[in-house]
Amino acid sequence: MTSATFGFAVQATCGKARAGTITTPRGDIRTPAFMPVGTAATVKAMLPGSVRATGADILLGNTYHLMLRPTAERIAALGGLHKFMNWDRPILTDSGGFQVMSLASLRKMTEKGVTFRSHIDGSRHEITPERSMEIQRLLGSDIVMAFDECTPYPADEGTARASMELSMRWAQRSRDAFGDRPGHALFGIQQGSVYADQRAESASKLRTIGFDGYAVGGLAVGEGQEKMFEVLDYAPDMLPEDKPRYLMGVGKPSDIVGAVARGIDMMDCVLPSRSGRTGQGWTARGQVNLRNARHRDDPRPLEEGCTCPACTGYSRAYLHHVIKSDEIIGSMLLTWHNLHYYQSLMQGLRDAISAGALADFTAAFHANVALGDVDLR
Amino acid sequence: MTSATFGFAVQATCGKARAGTITTPRGDIRTPAFMPVGTAATVKAMLPGSVRATGADILLGNTYHLMLRPTAERIAALGGLHKFMNWDRPILTDSGGFQVMSLASLRKMTEKGVTFRSHIDGSRHEITPERSMEIQRLLGSDIVMAFDECTPYPADEGTARASMELSMRWAQRSRDAFGDRPGHALFGIQQGSVYADQRAESASKLRTIGFDGYAVGGLAVGEGQEKMFEVLDYAPDMLPEDKPRYLMGVGKPSDIVGAVARGIDMMDCVLPSRSGRTGQGWTARGQVNLRNARHRDDPRPLEEGCTCPACTGYSRAYLHHVIKSDEIIGSMLLTWHNLHYYQSLMQGLRDAISAGALADFTAAFHANVALGDVDLR
Ligand SMILES: [Zn+2]
Ligand SMILES: [Zn+2]
Repeated sequence: MTSATFGFAVQATCGKARAGTITTPRGDIRTPAFMPVGTAATVKAMLPGSVRATGADILLGNTYHLMLRPTAERIAALGGLHKFMNWDRPILTDSGGFQVMSLASLRKMTEKGVTFRSHIDGSRHEITPERSMEIQRLLGSDIVMAFDECTPYPADEGTARASMELSMRWAQRSRDAFGDRPGHALFGIQQGSVYADQRAESASKLRTIGFDGYAVGGLAVGEGQEKMFEVLDYAPDMLPEDKPRYLMGVGKPSDIVGAVARGIDMMDCVLPSRSGRTGQGWTARGQVNLRNARHRDDPRPLEEGCTCPACTGYSRAYLHHVIKSDEIIGSMLLTWHNLHYYQSLMQGLRDAISAGALADFTAAFHANVALGDVDLR
Repeated sequence: MTSATFGFAVQATCGKARAGTITTPRGDIRTPAFMPVGTAATVKAMLPGSVRATGADILLGNTYHLMLRPTAERIAALGGLHKFMNWDRPILTDSGGFQVMSLASLRKMTEKGVTFRSHIDGSRHEITPERSMEIQRLLGSDIVMAFDECTPYPADEGTARASMELSMRWAQRSRDAFGDRPGHALFGIQQGSVYADQRAESASKLRTIGFDGYAVGGLAVGEGQEKMFEVLDYAPDMLPEDKPRYLMGVGKPSDIVGAVARGIDMMDCVLPSRSGRTGQGWTARGQVNLRNARHRDDPRPLEEGCTCPACTGYSRAYLHHVIKSDEIIGSMLLTWHNLHYYQSLMQGLRDAISAGALADFTAAFHANVALGDVDLR
């Protein structure tokens, strides 16, 4: 399904959780949605058709990486990011701000924006709200994120407020620079750290500016799940009900289940793909380290009943072997399984919400994880 | 097509070149055949279904690597190499001898066999003709190679003779140890370096012992194409006409074309997959280094008209980007293209032989390569 314009409709709710559909000219996105991360115009170790086969409706691309290499201008000249990376469905791009702060060197932030040196070649760059909007337009992003500062954690109230207020001024500049682009969406990002009054004030400012969707920013930055859930107990409620709510950079399966129950519609994380490259498999019974010698002779699949190529074609013994041997197929198979597991989890959440049975689903999820991995035979 | 027994039939000849079919219980092998190398139970950066999609009828597995990790006994307990690596078509395994000499340390060769230390963990191992047959049986190999010494190049006549004669004694011991295994084939390996009389004597001894197929060994070890073709001008003719002839470790596309014209039916080489991991693409117009900046803005595919995923889905600019960024998808796409190109070349050779037009095909092949890569636009 495609739609000429960007839209969002909630089809079912269960408590605070919502199951819905984001419509875009490049296809529908079933929510709650998990977005695999395609940092440098590739979801690492996966072909786009395989990513789609896991059930992904949308990918995330990283403005910071792409602006440095191969550059947004080059991608635009080549027909945009979708064509460049051979993914014709929706793409959300971040604003670049978060990764400038975590990866670039010699950063200098002013009211205008941030200047920095590339972590690749030391070249000098600047991102401002206006430049971030330009880059994301050049990339052809379907969902554009406002340029903000991700407030570090912990931050005292004064620091958090100054950071949030700067992000809100940048949100207005992002809105102004984005302009009117039918079929493309601009999301604002709520800040305010762990302070409810600041979260409320941030949400209020964003609503006044008006966005097509709203992210909860400044979480998943080291505060831990308990603290994150405390903020999620109130922060999403401050955002418009009729727009998608996006929790950036989350997370572990249990983070996702908890966030969805608190009203989050979209998430992204490098965890399933990064774990896949280090021999970690995510299953309904938790995380499995396939480097461990206990899998060496195990003829069973990583996860019984999983329909991914890693589980239908290979034993744990094989996965152990190729991971120990640093074979690329180890990264390929485990990334595929992990993305498949994540998308299956999202489908389970959507189904449970539609059936009004999210509490049961969540209880079963935690009970399964608590069992731990299958025993040695 | 499968057959209860191992067999070989020549369907067409063109000069010395032959187009035929090797039949095995695991499926037919169209010859001349190129066998991708699956060293450690994986063709690097490829899923088996993708290798098959390129047109490969058979893979090569490496006894040396597999005996060390995960071990032949472990693979046997897990159901054999086919099941382990999820490839149900024929597999040829080498004898381990060549890679012991090129990779292992503290090698000691005696009449009995060779002892060595693993390049992985320094552990002590021995391969004899009998042990090599046992390992290849444990792996479940369809085409088993006799254990031999690959005579180094250059070797003076005396050295070459002593090495050849040892290999012929080992060939007899391999034959004795292999026993009678319907549906499985044992290939003998001709040695004799660049000395025609020794090649003839080796062939004669092998024919006396009797094998299901015959390899030309001791080539592609640094002697260069001209010298190799000089030997191939006579060596294959010394082997039985009614059995497949296998040239081990070859080669570049031009090596393959020249070897087929000289009566070779089977080849293997790591080149297409290894090149793919270093940003080298093989095309009808020669080798293309995609790391080169001239591809940075090139919207064209690596090879116009190629139906592989790298060429149908991506520009040279994209391939350049992911290779420069060390993204796994660069290895995946280029390996796929290279294996696809190699298999297309084999299909072209088979068709040309069947049409009695190999000379035209060969001339066109060289003319195309001489053109060099497509110009910048
Ligand atoms: Zn799986
Ligand atoms: Zn291609």
